[in-house]
Amino acid sequence: MIGEIIAIGDELISGRTENTTSAFAARHLFAAGHEIYAMHTIGDNPALIGEVLKRALKRVDFVVVTGGLGSTTDDLTNEAVAEALDREPILYPEILKRIREHLDANQQVSNLEKMAWLPQGAEILNEKAKMAGYLLVHNSIPVFFLPGVPYQMRELLLEHVLPRLAGWSGNHHRVKQRTYKTFGLPETVINQRLLALERRDSIHIGYYPVNCEVHVSLTVLEENKQAAEEKFIDADRVITDALGDAIYGTDQDTLASVVGKLLQDRHKMLSVAESCTGGMIGKRITEVAGSSTWFAGGVIAYSNRLKEILLNVDHDLLNNYGAVSEQVAIAMAARLSERISSDISVSVTGIAGPTGGSDEKPVGTVYIGIFYNNKVTAHLHHFSGNRTRIRDTTTCTALDTVRRALLTDSVQ
Amino acid sequence: MIGEIIAIGDELISGRTENTTSAFAARHLFAAGHEIYAMHTIGDNPALIGEVLKRALKRVDFVVVTGGLGSTTDDLTNEAVAEALDREPILYPEILKRIREHLDANQQVSNLEKMAWLPQGAEILNEKAKMAGYLLVHNSIPVFFLPGVPYQMRELLLEHVLPRLAGWSGNHHRVKQRTYKTFGLPETVINQRLLALERRDSIHIGYYPVNCEVHVSLTVLEENKQAAEEKFIDADRVITDALGDAIYGTDQDTLASVVGKLLQDRHKMLSVAESCTGGMIGKRITEVAGSSTWFAGGVIAYSNRLKEILLNVDHDLLNNYGAVSEQVAIAMAARLSERISSDISVSVTGIAGPTGGSDEKPVGTVYIGIFYNNKVTAHLHHFSGNRTRIRDTTTCTALDTVRRALLTDSVQ
Repeated sequence: MIGEIIAIGDELISGRTENTTSAFAARHLFAAGHEIYAMHTIGDNPALIGEVLKRALKRVDFVVVTGGLGSTTDDLTNEAVAEALDREPILYPEILKRIREHLDANQQVSNLEKMAWLPQGAEILNEKAKMAGYLLVHNSIPVFFLPGVPYQMRELLLEHVLPRLAGWSGNHHRVKQRTYKTFGLPETVINQRLLALERRDSIHIGYYPVNCEVHVSLTVLEENKQAAEEKFIDADRVITDALGDAIYGTDQDTLASVVGKLLQDRHKMLSVAESCTGGMIGKRITEVAGSSTWFAGGVIAYSNRLKEILLNVDHDLLNNYGAVSEQVAIAMAARLSERISSDISVSVTGIAGPTGGSDEKPVGTVYIGIFYNNKVTAHLHHFSGNRTRIRDTTTCTALDTVRRALLTDSVQ
Repeated sequence: MIGEIIAIGDELISGRTENTTSAFAARHLFAAGHEIYAMHTIGDNPALIGEVLKRALKRVDFVVVTGGLGSTTDDLTNEAVAEALDREPILYPEILKRIREHLDANQQVSNLEKMAWLPQGAEILNEKAKMAGYLLVHNSIPVFFLPGVPYQMRELLLEHVLPRLAGWSGNHHRVKQRTYKTFGLPETVINQRLLALERRDSIHIGYYPVNCEVHVSLTVLEENKQAAEEKFIDADRVITDALGDAIYGTDQDTLASVVGKLLQDRHKMLSVAESCTGGMIGKRITEVAGSSTWFAGGVIAYSNRLKEILLNVDHDLLNNYGAVSEQVAIAMAARLSERISSDISVSVTGIAGPTGGSDEKPVGTVYIGIFYNNKVTAHLHHFSGNRTRIRDTTTCTALDTVRRALLTDSVQ
């Protein structure tokens, strides 16, 4: 089915809040075989809400609307929809009851009653949740209204919207989709290598730089299921041959989760010694649920003092070569592994800027060290961009350094 | 001026990439006194690109278009615009020259030539950049075309689009705007306290839950500059009185940057001992440029072993009370401060889930410890939500614990 997504909220059009819910909805709808025609982000503006919704109802098979359902005075979605679709607001006593059950201390039900008035015909999606969301079928088109608060919206989308849409009639195509996640090759090089594949019928290739990675999506659209499968298997082979070990994973994989799987398979424990990244590598790793089975932790050695006290890096080494040096990166990784008996350690020390650079070591100079199999080495990198970008690229490169050491069972 | 933002790219409507550029543009345009009527995210679909652009040209004063300007075959914005606005594509030799200068190894200029064909009338925004962006004035309406790659887009927006728009005629209103960033009060309580203010003329209040914080925006729109100033000063006083020290900062402040200022003023050094956050607190802190003057670093004590070896937490303490306990949180903060002679240390130990919870200590159980002025204490928290949310709330609460210790010069 083809759908449109409408996100509502003044906070979104003033840019104070990033709209992450639309992308989440699009991703999961797409993965479920639907296609998104357009996504709109508009303010709490009743006239525009009505206009955009009515236009969508004329051209797509379903609509997802998020935001503006809350209790504060700037939430106007229900009123706007009632007006635009000519559906009088009705008080839903079951919502009122649920609001009472979920009251925080120092809240009064009267302030929240607004949330219980929905446009006529609304069907509540989840009777049990405080923020229910609802479905309105208008001229046979399902319109899902979900809260703008990301975690509430996500739950309702996954548990109620997707199952409801799966049961709807109108799914014409067989879609096979996979995202290949790569690190280390420029986007244009990847594009060149896949040009011939891209020209084949029913196949669509997309190229998406995501921070320091490039994600390549393969989509096969076919009326016939078997044809879709065959084209997909063939295209998958072409892509994996063309991009080789620059592909670190697919779909839901992250660099950290892939590193975790490699560590688990080899029964190894990883540790990190972070200077300029200040905890980012550890953060990225511990986003993976269950990472405690393969990640010990490490040291945020932001100051030289901590490099000495917690990592046993020699004072002379720091003095003679500077904190940002091959020697110190090597010492950080090796001493940490020794000290805590971890099998593999990665270290980073660099200049993330905006200040701290010199002619000899400009902003973006980063050394990444790795200790593995009782060998240790470090490499110099020159990363570009602002502080955020340099730190992000450093984090990705450190994780990829661990991945390659585990894959080749050596450090180079 | 009132504008519309159009983001183009199949990666955005399939949700593989989150559209962060539109929110960035909206925020900076808003801060510069402009208003955003709507933002659209659409695929690399020439017909729809033309339709959305033409509708915008009829109703707003300016348009910002991002994405689809690159060299790969799925980038179709220039072709779509040329067609929709009836402006033949022209080869810009200066772009071709610049592309040559910026070639990566293993790239050929022929593959990138596509980027040098722009719709007739295009004026290049930045002659020096590889990805230039351009301005097209159509029926007196300025339309800015910017790359979709976030850091390129941001630079062009700040350095070229905003200055060009500032010089345009058509800015009717005086706008004063401030965002108050709060932590610790529920959104509905804040809304209640500001209801009377909200009802005043020319004043608009918005409420935005942003992860574990609530941001409150104050906007004053007046034709007259002095009236705007006066109303703004008065409303500012009402808000700061109503929300008190739940307000940690305004506008560009972050919890980490505010903690940094307090530390700098007091000449104190901070350190962190992180278990369940795995580096997130350090990451958040070191996002602040110059944080090395007030942040020493710390330990990612993810495993019990590291709590013992690097933080000197007694084995017996871990055995008797468990890693997630008041006693261990206290020991982590106190021992770290001792060991590295830091003035103030914050520690976290908790269960982020999805596994690892028990009846006694369910998922979301977190102890946050703080050592300051030779006193140490720890508090138990019960956070809700998934792993990401629990870790994020823990990080915010830890930073707020440091803020309150510094503000009151004590630990409680």
